[in-house]
Amino acid sequence: MLYLIGLGLWDEKDISLRGLEIVKKCDNVFIEKYTSFWGGNLENLGIKAEEVLREDLENNVDKFLENTKDKNVALLVPGDPLIATTHNSILLEAKKKEIKTEVIHSSSIFSAIGETGLQIYKFGKIATIPFYYSESPYRILEENLKQEAHTLFLLDITKEKLMSCNEGLKILLDSEKKFKKGLISKETEVVVFCKVGSKEQILKYDKIENLLFSVGNTRRSDGAPLLRNEGKRPLFAKQKEGLCELNCFPCVIIVPGKLHFLERDFLASLKS
Amino acid sequence: MLYLIGLGLWDEKDISLRGLEIVKKCDNVFIEKYTSFWGGNLENLGIKAEEVLREDLENNVDKFLENTKDKNVALLVPGDPLIATTHNSILLEAKKKEIKTEVIHSSSIFSAIGETGLQIYKFGKIATIPFYYSESPYRILEENLKQEAHTLFLLDITKEKLMSCNEGLKILLDSEKKFKKGLISKETEVVVFCKVGSKEQILKYDKIENLLFSVGNTRRSDGAPLLRNEGKRPLFAKQKEGLCELNCFPCVIIVPGKLHFLERDFLASLKS
Repeated sequence: MLYLIGLGLWDEKDISLRGLEIVKKCDNVFIEKYTSFWGGNLENLGIKAEEVLREDLENNVDKFLENTKDKNVALLVPGDPLIATTHNSILLEAKKKEIKTEVIHSSSIFSAIGETGLQIYKFGKIATIPFYYSESPYRILEENLKQEAHTLFLLDITKEKLMSCNEGLKILLDSEKKFKKGLISKETEVVVFCKVGSKEQILKYDKIENLLFSVGNTRRSDGAPLLRNEGKRPLFAKQKEGLCELNCFPCVIIVPGKLHFLERDFLASLKS
Repeated sequence: MLYLIGLGLWDEKDISLRGLEIVKKCDNVFIEKYTSFWGGNLENLGIKAEEVLREDLENNVDKFLENTKDKNVALLVPGDPLIATTHNSILLEAKKKEIKTEVIHSSSIFSAIGETGLQIYKFGKIATIPFYYSESPYRILEENLKQEAHTLFLLDITKEKLMSCNEGLKILLDSEKKFKKGLISKETEVVVFCKVGSKEQILKYDKIENLLFSVGNTRRSDGAPLLRNEGKRPLFAKQKEGLCELNCFPCVIIVPGKLHFLERDFLASLKS
């Protein structure tokens, strides 16, 4: 039996009672940290989990599943276990092998965006802004604005790097320079939502020009990436000693479509 | 201080450790049950919560907030506390009165739809199918299909009634008869996802004609609505004695847009 269990938004306290109860009765507990950033500490819950890598769950999934045939095995995933759609393939492979599975859901960025005051049912397609060049985020923004829908931008995460809000905003402005459809400019008012789910979360609505360098890597204008730092908050490049308080991951950017007056009121309250 | 705390998808075990810890230290605990159906039992967690009604939180929110000024007050909400956008207005009013607030997120239908194998970022706008006549669900389906996006349909809930999947599917077919744009027919393959988050959850992908009467109120063809039955599973109309095993609430319908081959593989596995 394989349980996919969501750890929730921020740290070890975001797991559900159901999730914790199951973990405690499992013979083996694994955790993956490659689909999202998570900085909790499972030892605070008395849980010892072995980290599995992308290659364990993608290229060698047969081997991973072999272990779940006559045992209870938990795979812990930051946020909700199926938001990163890669884990559906594990469920599908398990089904082929007649291994039972159960998914325990948890909070994720899609729950959290309600805090912006924007109505969930007015969001259009979600886009990810990747480190590599892609037309996709700008194209999705265009489609959504035609529908008067809001656009949620997730920011890229790789084995080494985390994208900051600043980088994401700059990439959107660069796309505008290239495609020139007048969708977005330094004057555009957008939402940035950082350190989501923590006590220090940052939720701001303002013109992009006012947000650039006021969120995320405020003291670095050279675009140096945030580096991953397993189990702790991310670090800036070239600043590996001690934890940096200026990071903002995990964070998202939202470009609103047409605003209802209640949405406008709420966003206005985020400016102060 | 006011805490808005999500109870999660199904029952009292779906609250997070963080949520429970806060509830336990609060002076007053309230619960609202009008934005969604929730059938858990808080007494299993040693929590006594007083139910608040829509009018308490909408028309008389000032009075409700007055009580939170020099106390710690928890408002428990089924699913995630901000998915039903009505609760943003409480946060806004609290801000005006300089009352501190904190939101504790939880699992919701938007986390759960990952179980369909459909990719979250390929969903378009979300629609609700209301009991009253509305062109909106069909219009949103049309917009989304143009974008090749999937459409998630939530089903209406009122003070007295819960919409079943059967009713929702019939309303969609009726819209097609009216608007005749060829978006949907009895041959269209759709997903129904019922009793989401429970051990008995139903997840099927099939032609509408095969799903009608195989989910939800299978033995009733007269369209009698499901009735709310506070604290327990919903009942069919005219069948108030005992719990009915044939209900399916909470449930959603998904009409897929263009399918990626991995999505197609996963959906195929839901047919058996």
